[in-house]
Amino acid sequence: MSKELGKKRGTKLGIGLAGFGTVGTGVWETFQKNAELIANRSGVEVDIVRIAVRDITKSRAEGVAAEKFTTDWNDVVSDPAVDLVVELIGGTTTAFDIVAAAIRAKKPVVTGNKALLAERGQELFALSREYDTPIHFEAAVAGAIPIIKAVQDSFVGNRIESMTGIINGTSNYILERMTEAGLGYEEALGEAQQLGYAEADPTLDVNGWDAAHKAILLATLAYGFTIDYNQVYVRGIERVRAIDISFAKSLGYVVKLLCVVREHDNGMIEIRTQPSFISQNHVLSSVNGVFNAVAVNGDASGESLFYGRGAGKGPTASSVVADIVEGSLGINHGGSHRGFLPYEDKGQLMPIEDTETPYYVRFDVTDEPGVIAKIANTLADAGIGISGTHSPVNAENPDADFVDMVFQLHTCKFGLLKSTLKDIEKLDCVNSRPVVFRIENIV
Amino acid sequence: MSKELGKKRGTKLGIGLAGFGTVGTGVWETFQKNAELIANRSGVEVDIVRIAVRDITKSRAEGVAAEKFTTDWNDVVSDPAVDLVVELIGGTTTAFDIVAAAIRAKKPVVTGNKALLAERGQELFALSREYDTPIHFEAAVAGAIPIIKAVQDSFVGNRIESMTGIINGTSNYILERMTEAGLGYEEALGEAQQLGYAEADPTLDVNGWDAAHKAILLATLAYGFTIDYNQVYVRGIERVRAIDISFAKSLGYVVKLLCVVREHDNGMIEIRTQPSFISQNHVLSSVNGVFNAVAVNGDASGESLFYGRGAGKGPTASSVVADIVEGSLGINHGGSHRGFLPYEDKGQLMPIEDTETPYYVRFDVTDEPGVIAKIANTLADAGIGISGTHSPVNAENPDADFVDMVFQLHTCKFGLLKSTLKDIEKLDCVNSRPVVFRIENIV
Repeated sequence: MSKELGKKRGTKLGIGLAGFGTVGTGVWETFQKNAELIANRSGVEVDIVRIAVRDITKSRAEGVAAEKFTTDWNDVVSDPAVDLVVELIGGTTTAFDIVAAAIRAKKPVVTGNKALLAERGQELFALSREYDTPIHFEAAVAGAIPIIKAVQDSFVGNRIESMTGIINGTSNYILERMTEAGLGYEEALGEAQQLGYAEADPTLDVNGWDAAHKAILLATLAYGFTIDYNQVYVRGIERVRAIDISFAKSLGYVVKLLCVVREHDNGMIEIRTQPSFISQNHVLSSVNGVFNAVAVNGDASGESLFYGRGAGKGPTASSVVADIVEGSLGINHGGSHRGFLPYEDKGQLMPIEDTETPYYVRFDVTDEPGVIAKIANTLADAGIGISGTHSPVNAENPDADFVDMVFQLHTCKFGLLKSTLKDIEKLDCVNSRPVVFRIENIV
Repeated sequence: MSKELGKKRGTKLGIGLAGFGTVGTGVWETFQKNAELIANRSGVEVDIVRIAVRDITKSRAEGVAAEKFTTDWNDVVSDPAVDLVVELIGGTTTAFDIVAAAIRAKKPVVTGNKALLAERGQELFALSREYDTPIHFEAAVAGAIPIIKAVQDSFVGNRIESMTGIINGTSNYILERMTEAGLGYEEALGEAQQLGYAEADPTLDVNGWDAAHKAILLATLAYGFTIDYNQVYVRGIERVRAIDISFAKSLGYVVKLLCVVREHDNGMIEIRTQPSFISQNHVLSSVNGVFNAVAVNGDASGESLFYGRGAGKGPTASSVVADIVEGSLGINHGGSHRGFLPYEDKGQLMPIEDTETPYYVRFDVTDEPGVIAKIANTLADAGIGISGTHSPVNAENPDADFVDMVFQLHTCKFGLLKSTLKDIEKLDCVNSRPVVFRIENIV
């Protein structure tokens, strides 16, 4: 590559990493492999000059000079050779301190920490604006899929009508294995853990919050106001059972952990994450394993879909590297060039009670005459229409006293459904809290 | 929206449009509708100050002041109030002059003109570099799909292993109608024209060149060297017949006009556009109608897919507006911030003769004993393996002397296939040039 062809180069920028696990190693390796390509394409040349780790004795990626390591993240942020800080330690406490300190030092930040930004973004984005120092977070949502850039930059001219995403690979893998191999939930989770697709503590993945954090970030970009994560409706996959999967299948649906973000005509924003039935014909139904996908509807762009690897060393490093280049270009060319968050001072979440879809509800009932009538009467009194009801025979135990009874319900407000289910729970023949799935008719 | 929240604003930038047809009107309308949203998100405020049109008397979008119009594009480029020029007239002559003049005036350019950049990009990109003035061309490839930004920015850290795209909506619509409704080629084309999906002169769409232009741009971004479009292999859909579609179907394939871009281990770049058989199980097979999709494989990112509307007023305007914002940010924040093209001074296209796939070949033969043997012998002599051969009965005319005979062939170099087909053409029983489809096993 002749130097004349390359863009006029800046001097090499110094990068500091806080955290050097899987993703950090991936970032290091990507620059080892593709530094010249990156420089040729973008004019950006970087040097990873300082790396904070918890245990300095642990073996690391090959070729990293020992003197780069420190156990004190302050060494990374305050090092004058560090122009940009990459936060990869996760969590919302020390990570917060690192990001805040970097911004105060006017060093742009790259992070893949969705929990941090979804829960404490308000403070960090305010700091970012105050210090005119950007936070780049492409790696926080959907691994290698450039969905942040798409929503922020490529669809900048669009009112975002809706975003529908499968953005937790662990849940998606577990649901796929329950669907394809007929595994039970615990069994599928165990398999995911063995394969490294689920953490030893899989809580945030299976309870829906990892996906919800990402949905909150996407909604913040799309609608510009600060979203209180405490107001966001989130349900995980822990209560999904084989029977739900097989019912979905027989009805032409697939069960997916779905994030739905939508702007209503009254300007209210619906955000929710929960296991949902989606049509086998929709392209999202074929997003399997650890892949992620986000469908975006803009008022000008129409329907789009972004699909790719949602996690893992290479895919996440790909997005971190893109953000390092973006941040470096900002430094080389006179400051950050995108807007800061939030960019609207108001905005309102739609109460989950006001959102509406059709539903699938499973009841654990005592097997006795009149059960369907009792439940159906309560639903009828509430004005909720039934489109189907099934009481499968318990093949393993045909004489069981307790059976699963499922109802498909017409579209109604979730609040009405919830209060009606409370009434149904009080019936003697109903033995536990009903399990609800949304039936999503995705545009 | 309180002004404090917005990014520090630049002054309003002046935009000049050359061309005010469907897309130009869409751009105008998008700013009419979403200007405040765009300003809040990006800090960019623009004013479309001058518009060059061919016929000044023609009725235009509502609300455009008459004094903005001119029939001389020089008025747009030279207007001191114009900071950025949007070229939307198409073609490769006047459009070239407009883009070149704008760059010489150091005014960033936004264009959706794939033919211009694929055929005359070498000159324009050189000018762009010389004058340090960027050309933005997201709208040139795949309408609303942000594939340019994805390849250029989001995958900047990746060696791009391959890109496979369905990027001509007209061809895709025609092939879909032939597949789904059993229409013949001419009939499907007529329907596409009636619906406005095909131009009165559909040449560039159906002969593959519109798609090829886009593939050339994607390859230029991915590999950085100047690609001579004369060296690129391009075949259109004009010779696809109903029999090919139904054969594909019975073999588990769908016929798509496919662009394939791939880097080989020896560093050579394969680029080709042609009707291809792809598996019904691959997600690209379900890209229907006027939708586009591009699958991208990066060495870090792994497999990704981008899907959306490939053309039309809103989708194309969405990308033009994104580029106007990008260009405006560049002006507001001290110049263009991405690398210029080309960024490599060398690179080599793989001769089409050296590329290899399995094939489907249809021969028009005289219906007489020994035909299969003759063709099979010639293939055998060349060392080309046959995986299947079929001679469908001509249901409409069972006594016809001429029939279609199809062969499925194992993977071999295209050069070998070509020379062998030349030999087969010389056989008395073969009546015309064979029709070849690649069978693509897309990763």
